[in-house]
Amino acid sequence: MKVNVRVIPLDRELKLKTGDNLRAALIEAGIPLDSPCGGQGTCLKCRVQLAGVSRRYTELEREKLSREELDEGWHLACQVTVEEPGEVRLPEIEVSRAKAGFGLLGEEIALQPNVRSVHFEISRPSIKDQRADWNRLAEYLERTIKRPVSTDLSLLRELSLRLREWNFSGEAVVVGDEVVALDPPGSTADILGVAIDIGTTTLAAGLVDLNTGKVVALDAELNPQIAFGADVISRIMYAQDGPESREKLQKELVKGLNQLLLRLCRSARRKKERIFEATVVGNTTMLHTLLGLEARYIAQAPYVGGLNQSYDLPAIELGLPIHPRGKVHIMPSIASFVGADTVAVILAARLHQSRVPRLAIDIGTNGEVMLATGKGVLTASTAAGPAFEGGRIKYGMRAVKGAISSFQATPIMNYSVIGGVAPRGICGSGLIDLVAELYRTGVLDQKGRIMLPAEISAGELAPRVRVREAAREFVIFRDEDREVTLTQQDVRELQLAKGAIRAGVELLMKEVGVGADDIQEVLLAGVFGNYINRERAVALGLIPPFPLEKIHFIGNGAMDGALRALLNLEERGQAEKIASEVRHIELSGRPDFEETFLRCLSFGN
Amino acid sequence: MKVNVRVIPLDRELKLKTGDNLRAALIEAGIPLDSPCGGQGTCLKCRVQLAGVSRRYTELEREKLSREELDEGWHLACQVTVEEPGEVRLPEIEVSRAKAGFGLLGEEIALQPNVRSVHFEISRPSIKDQRADWNRLAEYLERTIKRPVSTDLSLLRELSLRLREWNFSGEAVVVGDEVVALDPPGSTADILGVAIDIGTTTLAAGLVDLNTGKVVALDAELNPQIAFGADVISRIMYAQDGPESREKLQKELVKGLNQLLLRLCRSARRKKERIFEATVVGNTTMLHTLLGLEARYIAQAPYVGGLNQSYDLPAIELGLPIHPRGKVHIMPSIASFVGADTVAVILAARLHQSRVPRLAIDIGTNGEVMLATGKGVLTASTAAGPAFEGGRIKYGMRAVKGAISSFQATPIMNYSVIGGVAPRGICGSGLIDLVAELYRTGVLDQKGRIMLPAEISAGELAPRVRVREAAREFVIFRDEDREVTLTQQDVRELQLAKGAIRAGVELLMKEVGVGADDIQEVLLAGVFGNYINRERAVALGLIPPFPLEKIHFIGNGAMDGALRALLNLEERGQAEKIASEVRHIELSGRPDFEETFLRCLSFGN
Repeated sequence: MKVNVRVIPLDRELKLKTGDNLRAALIEAGIPLDSPCGGQGTCLKCRVQLAGVSRRYTELEREKLSREELDEGWHLACQVTVEEPGEVRLPEIEVSRAKAGFGLLGEEIALQPNVRSVHFEISRPSIKDQRADWNRLAEYLERTIKRPVSTDLSLLRELSLRLREWNFSGEAVVVGDEVVALDPPGSTADILGVAIDIGTTTLAAGLVDLNTGKVVALDAELNPQIAFGADVISRIMYAQDGPESREKLQKELVKGLNQLLLRLCRSARRKKERIFEATVVGNTTMLHTLLGLEARYIAQAPYVGGLNQSYDLPAIELGLPIHPRGKVHIMPSIASFVGADTVAVILAARLHQSRVPRLAIDIGTNGEVMLATGKGVLTASTAAGPAFEGGRIKYGMRAVKGAISSFQATPIMNYSVIGGVAPRGICGSGLIDLVAELYRTGVLDQKGRIMLPAEISAGELAPRVRVREAAREFVIFRDEDREVTLTQQDVRELQLAKGAIRAGVELLMKEVGVGADDIQEVLLAGVFGNYINRERAVALGLIPPFPLEKIHFIGNGAMDGALRALLNLEERGQAEKIASEVRHIELSGRPDFEETFLRCLSFGN
Repeated sequence: MKVNVRVIPLDRELKLKTGDNLRAALIEAGIPLDSPCGGQGTCLKCRVQLAGVSRRYTELEREKLSREELDEGWHLACQVTVEEPGEVRLPEIEVSRAKAGFGLLGEEIALQPNVRSVHFEISRPSIKDQRADWNRLAEYLERTIKRPVSTDLSLLRELSLRLREWNFSGEAVVVGDEVVALDPPGSTADILGVAIDIGTTTLAAGLVDLNTGKVVALDAELNPQIAFGADVISRIMYAQDGPESREKLQKELVKGLNQLLLRLCRSARRKKERIFEATVVGNTTMLHTLLGLEARYIAQAPYVGGLNQSYDLPAIELGLPIHPRGKVHIMPSIASFVGADTVAVILAARLHQSRVPRLAIDIGTNGEVMLATGKGVLTASTAAGPAFEGGRIKYGMRAVKGAISSFQATPIMNYSVIGGVAPRGICGSGLIDLVAELYRTGVLDQKGRIMLPAEISAGELAPRVRVREAAREFVIFRDEDREVTLTQQDVRELQLAKGAIRAGVELLMKEVGVGADDIQEVLLAGVFGNYINRERAVALGLIPPFPLEKIHFIGNGAMDGALRALLNLEERGQAEKIASEVRHIELSGRPDFEETFLRCLSFGN
């Protein structure tokens, strides 16, 4: 049975199935819930306040939540089973993120946007002062904002009537140096902006009130380009078919963005025509597909795209449904596989201003590694492959209902499944858990080979290894209908991903002579970064053996960076500096890459 | 019978009627023939070289042309009657005007256009140099032309393929700071520009090869807006009906420009897609209708338009069929009735650089008066009205076939008719001649009153005055079918026009204390300016009693100014300076205007 559940403050209406796990259902609906433990009920970050939805508390909730919280209707979303219609208020951390003047990471961002509303009261024309209307307005605005202004033909066409209707006063909305709209004097109409992060898999956007700096709505949407391939390489291959395919990719992406923007505006009860600027981050390929640029050379050595600079253009050229004279600011990229999303993560995490060594890893289809040395930032892109997103894994899947999201081997084998149903597959966090535990218990050796039952000491696990067509696999689940297994090939895929990322980390550290002990903080970014188990990532050797207290999740740092650039021109300038000053290390060009990569394929630290 | 006549170097094919006067037919077809005497065979400027068309010479031609000229087939167009198909080569002065690097007035213009083709040979990308394609090209161009460059999305979309196809070299066409096209290395494709003068009645355009500075074709076309009113005020009235009317005016104008551009390109055998920039002059109202701006406040005190500044925009926004990324530069205006055409005349005549007092008058529906004092330029706009273009005159008409174009009263009454047919009406030059001669012979008194036959001493003329319904008129021509007369009301209309222009001249001179003797040169501009009889204009009092040798015709000075701005950025900068520094005197705001205007209504000097 389906019930209506309203999500506050996003003001989204979801149709959820009774029996669904609330956390999984929210994530599946694209609502970024901060829950680093992956739904195991240990991080306590997925707090939500319910009215309706479920009237029961689990034992874990009674144990972990305070008397007061329970009285106020707070739950742990991962523990809630949907039972009836109702409202979900997102956790306190989400609300605080939406506080005026603060970025998603909770840091204050001074309000100095590229969009501003300037009040004007200009002298009426007379025989003694026959300046034309635009000359008159432009001169006033230039005196006020101390820079030359320009405008578009369509605004000039309405200018003369408006000035007279409003007795030569009003509010001019200026984006950069262009007057894009005129409002009547004293108008309190919204001045909005939107920050957009175009991921290979997920589109995310934050709607911002540029008068207050407050993020008024946040939302996400699947990238509709997924229909043309799960990773950037397959998208590039598709686009290579010709200009029509390129156009199709672009159109689909814009369609997805339009849906997302419409939903954002509906949920925040704002008008999309009052959005005057969009800042956009994303990996280089996604930005190429957004702009409709030729991307094929990104995928061929020496891996060079068409455009890495920041780029400003009218929203109408992309078909974005904001104000008809609204602007789009595409943030700069560093290299073909180190995009504006990485620039934004560096900006958000202040890596470029760090005086001590800090490491950041943005794990996705490509893993971007960033190393702040204290004197500058180095980046490397690693071809992690889609394993962490379920790609090329026999039973791999995204973190949705039916996915094994965590696993423990001992004392008894146990795993949790999103939605609390029988498992259908394994998602990224489950895969890391699974492989880490099988390695710890000797089911896998250091080289990643699945042992034969006779070689395995852990009694309960040994019988689960079988050999099919000369290939070994570990059976996690089996009933009459189906099974979920981890194959030898799956382990190899994970090793390739893990080896690539770890090699990137190693080589960047080696490049500047920074040891693991020197690094003061390790930041894991990306939506995915929120769900993996730190301890097991270290045990597996995905990251060097850092003390766990040094490892922090920063969620969607890229979105935070895009918000910063929207709210503050100073930050936008810093992004330019980052893009031009960050040293990108092309790993495939290094003589020591092969050897390091091969070594990093092994498990353990 | 109609015959085909080809016009060289315009390469236009005309269908002319046998029996037509060649000069009149060329003018009717919009080909600007320099013939200040108005076709009387005295100025000898309408020389054309014929192959076919006519095989006869008139006595006047035999007398005025040299043996050599006659042998080479030179004729005076005003003396030629079309008899058979053939070719007309335009007079030497037209050809010299089209010489590379020279403006229409024969002055040299250094070639420093806003459009340039820049050769590039950039390093190929490598693992050590992974700059994106645009970054790589932009950095190269910026080093070469020493300024930042930008580009449009559509060019970025083709960039990567082109660079590889051409092995990272080629020719970049740059307009201002924007790269608008890429050509293969060594390309010799044309780099063209076009200068456009939008008159209330006539659209004129000159196509220029920007590699050589040569004007490769000149042509003109009736402004199709004429269907919505003959003068600017009636166009403004029409546009006031609403946005649809405004759009209609704009569309019609652009349609006319498109026809003109297509014809220019066909005649010069050039591709319109190779035109990268258009410079546009015109009166303020015409520029408003071109841009689709609200023009109604131009016509209401205090006479203020929407835009007087220069304005750059993509040609595609106006629908001009040049290169899809080509640009339009609208030149700046001074005031609502002193447009960019006046700025262009000042530029062409170098009034702004004049160290001695010089006067220029551009006579059209509005007469613009310009006075260079030696220290600066003053302008005034006078509401001359359409009398000189045949408007509000009972038998008024444009200077086409059947128009009386010159008149003399004594010793015997005589007049010439364009096309050598029976007169159908009177054009501007004929009207001035007619009124000046009737005043000289006492048929008109100084106040412009038509005398009664008994009061007239000139015997032949007296019987031609008659009284109809209490109004006096002078009968010029009469047969069974029709008559052509000059009515008392016609004389009043001419007086208003003459009074307005003369008052403008007087008041500007008074404003700065410059007397007629101080003025070293008087320039008459506008196509119309080429046809009036200087002596009679002085006799009538249209202009102060300057010595005839000080009075010169400069033809379409506005077009020359537009060409200058197209060919040379320095000139374009001077136009900006002219627009901002010229002192516009609003005549209607002066206490002495009424008195001066009334005094100037009288004939004589």
